Amino acid sequence: MAMGFSEADVISVLREVFATTDPRLLVGIGDDAAVIQGVCRQVITTDVAVAGVHFRTDWSSAFDIGRKITAANVADVLSMGATCDYLVAAVTLTGAEELTWIEQLARGMKAEADRAGALIVGGDIARSSLITIAMTAVGRCEMPILRSGARIGDDIYISSLPGWSAAGLALLSKEKSPKGPTATKAIAEFSAPTLDYELNFSAATALCDISDSLLIQAQQLAAASDVCLRFETELIQSSAEFAELQKLAIDSSCDVWDWVLGGGEDHVFLATGKDLPGLRIGGVVEGSGISGIEMKKAPVSWSHFN
Amino acid sequence: MAMGFSEADVISVLREVFATTDPRLLVGIGDDAAVIQGVCRQVITTDVAVAGVHFRTDWSSAFDIGRKITAANVADVLSMGATCDYLVAAVTLTGAEELTWIEQLARGMKAEADRAGALIVGGDIARSSLITIAMTAVGRCEMPILRSGARIGDDIYISSLPGWSAAGLALLSKEKSPKGPTATKAIAEFSAPTLDYELNFSAATALCDISDSLLIQAQQLAAASDVCLRFETELIQSSAEFAELQKLAIDSSCDVWDWVLGGGEDHVFLATGKDLPGLRIGGVVEGSGISGIEMKKAPVSWSHFN
Repeated sequence: MAMGFSEADVISVLREVFATTDPRLLVGIGDDAAVIQGVCRQVITTDVAVAGVHFRTDWSSAFDIGRKITAANVADVLSMGATCDYLVAAVTLTGAEELTWIEQLARGMKAEADRAGALIVGGDIARSSLITIAMTAVGRCEMPILRSGARIGDDIYISSLPGWSAAGLALLSKEKSPKGPTATKAIAEFSAPTLDYELNFSAATALCDISDSLLIQAQQLAAASDVCLRFETELIQSSAEFAELQKLAIDSSCDVWDWVLGGGEDHVFLATGKDLPGLRIGGVVEGSGISGIEMKKAPVSWSHFN
Repeated sequence: MAMGFSEADVISVLREVFATTDPRLLVGIGDDAAVIQGVCRQVITTDVAVAGVHFRTDWSSAFDIGRKITAANVADVLSMGATCDYLVAAVTLTGAEELTWIEQLARGMKAEADRAGALIVGGDIARSSLITIAMTAVGRCEMPILRSGARIGDDIYISSLPGWSAAGLALLSKEKSPKGPTATKAIAEFSAPTLDYELNFSAATALCDISDSLLIQAQQLAAASDVCLRFETELIQSSAEFAELQKLAIDSSCDVWDWVLGGGEDHVFLATGKDLPGLRIGGVVEGSGISGIEMKKAPVSWSHFN
C-alpha cells in the first residue's frame, strides 16, 4: 500500500525532531553511523516493545508510546548507577501510520530523553505488519552499581510505590472501570511512566529497576547478592500512595497487592544500602530469596515464553 | 501457546553462546545493562530486520539470519572508518521457534561478531506475531570517514562487485532457476553476505556501505560531498566476478545491471580516494549526482515507504 510520504520525508522530520548542538554528538543523523564522544566506562542496554504486547495504539498516544519505551531504556542505564548519554531507535512501521503519528512518537522519545539528559543520535526504520520499537541506550559511570552488591544489614528501598502501570492496564482492560483523578493517574502511568530522575541512588550497594515486578526483581537481586530480602508490608502500606491505589483496587474489584508486587513497567528503582532516598520497605538478612511478601498467583507479565 | 522452555532457558543458552573473557567487557549479561570499556571517539548505529521483508526462515538458516543482521550492523560501523567493539540485539519471537533455532541465531551473530572482532554484550527478547531482529553496534575511530569527504580528482572504488545478494533473492523467488556453483554462491550471499574485514579503507576520503544499492548510495555520497561521481561501466565489467554474475543473469532471464546497480545487502563498501584497495570503477568530478550508470527501472528495495 502506497503512503503519502517517502522515507526521505520521515527522515527529514526525525532530523528536525532530534536536532542538537550538544558537544557529545560529533556526527548526527545522515551517515552510516553516529559519532559520539566516548568516556572511560560505559553501560549499554537494549529493549524492544511490541504493539499489542507492550503498548496499544488505541490506548496510548504516539507521544506516550515514545516516552514509555525511552523511559524503559533509560531506567536500565540509571539502574547501573550510570548516566544516560545516547539513545538509538530501530522502529518497524506498518505503513498505515500518519506522518504526524511518527513525528509524535519521535517527540515523545525526545521529551523523555531530554528529561534524562540523553541524546537520540540515530535509528533505523523498516516496514513490517506490526509496530515494534527497539531502543538501545549508552551511558557512563564511574563504578557500576550491580544487583550483586546487597549486604546483610542493608535496608531495602524503592524510589516510589510500584503498581500504577499495572493498575492502568487493569482499568483499560475492563469494560467498566472507575473514573476520577486516581484512575486517570493510573492510566497515564500505564501509557508512559513518570521516572524520578532526581533521586540519587549513587550510595546504593545494589540497584535494579522494577521492569517485570517487585517480586521478580527482588528475587533476582537476592540471588545475585546471595542474601535474603525481608520485606515489611506495613512499610509498603505506609506509603502515601498506597491508600490511593488500594481504594482504586477495591473500586475495580482488583487486588492491590497484585498490582504492587506483580506489576512491572513503572520502572521504580529497587535499591539496598543505608540512608537512601525513596521509601524504606525492609532489610537485607542472611539466607536466600525473599520473605514478607507473596502473591496469591505468580506474576506472569514478565515471562513472555511460559 | 505454551512453549517447552522458559525465558530463563533462552537466557541460559545465550549466556553460554556469548560468553567471553575479553577485557573490553566489564559486566556482561545478567544485570540491567552491560558495562563496557569506552574509548574516546565512538560510532553507534542500529539496524532492524523483519521476517518476510529482510529474511525468510524458510529460505535461510537461523545461523545465516544471525550472521546477516550482524554483518549489516558491523558494515555501518566499518563504513565510518571505525572498528566494531560491541553489539546488542533486541529480538522478537513468535513462540513457535525451537530453542535450537534461537541458539543457532545467536551462534550466527557470534560467528559474524567474531570475524569482525566485536563482542555481543546484551540483548532483549519479547513475544510478537513475527520475528524482528534489531541490533545496535558501537565502535571506535580516531577520525570518522564520512560520506561528505569526496574530492574532485579522487578515484571511486568498491570493495567487490555488488549484486550477489540481489541475484540470490531473484533465484529464490523464481519457481525454476539455474543450478550450479554460481547460483549456490548467490543464494549463500543472499542468506548472509561475506564481508571482507581485511580490506583497509582508512585512507579513503569518503566511505559508505552499499546496503540499499550502488545507485542510491552513490547518489547520497555525491550529494553529501557536493560532487559528481562519474562511473565507467567498462571498469565494473572488468571485474572477474562480472562475467560470472552476467551468465547467471542471462540463464535466469534477469538483467545483470539490475543486480549490480540496484541490489543492496551485499554490504560492499563504496569509497573515494587514491590508491585504495578493491575495484576502481570511476572518478570524482565537478558537478552533482552520478553519471555513467543508470537502470531501466529505479531500485525499489530500499524505500520501504513508497
